[in-house]
Amino acid sequence: MNPKRIQVCLSPALLPFYDLNGTVAVVIDIFRASSSMCYGLANGARAIIPVAELDECLAYQDKGYLLAAEREGAVVEGFDFGNSPFSYTREKVEGKTIVLTTTNGTRAIRLCAGAEAVVIGSFLNISALSNWLRDQDQHVLLVCAGWKNHVSLEDSVFAGAVVDRLIGSGIELDDAARAAQTLYLEAKGDLAAFLDKASHSKRMRHLHIKQDIAFCLQIDQVSTIPILKDGALGCLLGDVQTAP
Amino acid sequence: MNPKRIQVCLSPALLPFYDLNGTVAVVIDIFRASSSMCYGLANGARAIIPVAELDECLAYQDKGYLLAAEREGAVVEGFDFGNSPFSYTREKVEGKTIVLTTTNGTRAIRLCAGAEAVVIGSFLNISALSNWLRDQDQHVLLVCAGWKNHVSLEDSVFAGAVVDRLIGSGIELDDAARAAQTLYLEAKGDLAAFLDKASHSKRMRHLHIKQDIAFCLQIDQVSTIPILKDGALGCLLGDVQTAP
Repeated sequence: MNPKRIQVCLSPALLPFYDLNGTVAVVIDIFRASSSMCYGLANGARAIIPVAELDECLAYQDKGYLLAAEREGAVVEGFDFGNSPFSYTREKVEGKTIVLTTTNGTRAIRLCAGAEAVVIGSFLNISALSNWLRDQDQHVLLVCAGWKNHVSLEDSVFAGAVVDRLIGSGIELDDAARAAQTLYLEAKGDLAAFLDKASHSKRMRHLHIKQDIAFCLQIDQVSTIPILKDGALGCLLGDVQTAP
Repeated sequence: MNPKRIQVCLSPALLPFYDLNGTVAVVIDIFRASSSMCYGLANGARAIIPVAELDECLAYQDKGYLLAAEREGAVVEGFDFGNSPFSYTREKVEGKTIVLTTTNGTRAIRLCAGAEAVVIGSFLNISALSNWLRDQDQHVLLVCAGWKNHVSLEDSVFAGAVVDRLIGSGIELDDAARAAQTLYLEAKGDLAAFLDKASHSKRMRHLHIKQDIAFCLQIDQVSTIPILKDGALGCLLGDVQTAP
């Protein structure tokens, strides 16, 4: 495994063109699924079960799980909550198992199932994640969940931030990783201002969830790294050690 | 049609997620198919027929056409030439119809067939193209041919250069267009140095076709805009008016 490959997959629709063998896949859905997953597990959630469809989520009803569902940026009627990080506070999630379906993020997680490991990245856990990735004797594929298979600015910029932390001798980047890093270097001086132009920021302003954006752009709030095991996300590392 | 949409499709594999109705598709394969198409038509080629497969290309044998085929960056054995712009000089192509198949570019052209118009962009014709696009009462989709469905730096940067020329009031950009423009603004001071990091530049150095890169990065060498009509590319505008 020399050189170590760092690649960025800018849309889940491009995943079939990447080799997941010997590769850690990092799923990125900054606004807001991956941010909420990191925050929820750091706040003591036992596990988060990502499912692709609303029906799958509903199948967990009446079993003591918290059911979370987001579509088009809003909580789906009849569910406990969606993917706002403010629903993943300690009071709400400690000791609970959450079943979550979102427009983009949970689908991306399922598509990565063939990787050696699937972990979750967000600005909230970026240093813990990057340090762990640096230590792995595996290639790294940063998978942007995007929006309905379209490229999203916030996921791409975050991927670039991780590339920027991992770059070094013996590291090989693909063109998408170089592009993402360039975006990040341009954005990092004022992330919020840069991402204010993103289509998802507009979508979220429209839904009056602007405070979620500011929350999701906070750096290093947790050291938790969510990792997929047997179909559920638990903590790999961090201040709260839970297992599914 | 207000606002006018400018979008960037970073890989042909993402085309199914874009609406081609009321849209001009611009196919971009900077190294080297789209550059050679612009140059060849400007040099008096009667038409260029893009085909996806080698077999389709061979079907035109013995009919007086020039057959051009590139795979993995090299001329396929048994063909007149590949996609190096130095094969598309006036001496070689004037009055001729060329049948061309390439790894990425010609496939992207075929995938865009549902658009209102399909035109070809390269640095060689960027101003003529951008001015024409600005005048169209259509949305614009900049389609990067990439490399085997992966994002390529040179096509993305060129898409961003066109976005940068079209941006203005009444124009709506998607996130990929904003990302591409950011890349271009970072690259434009020294395009060659920026793109020297691109994976395709390495591929081409390896094939000893470095001079092709410099050729394809020249700005405004022609005013020809190749446009697809009845399966063949002819000139829309420019100093040499030909029709398929």
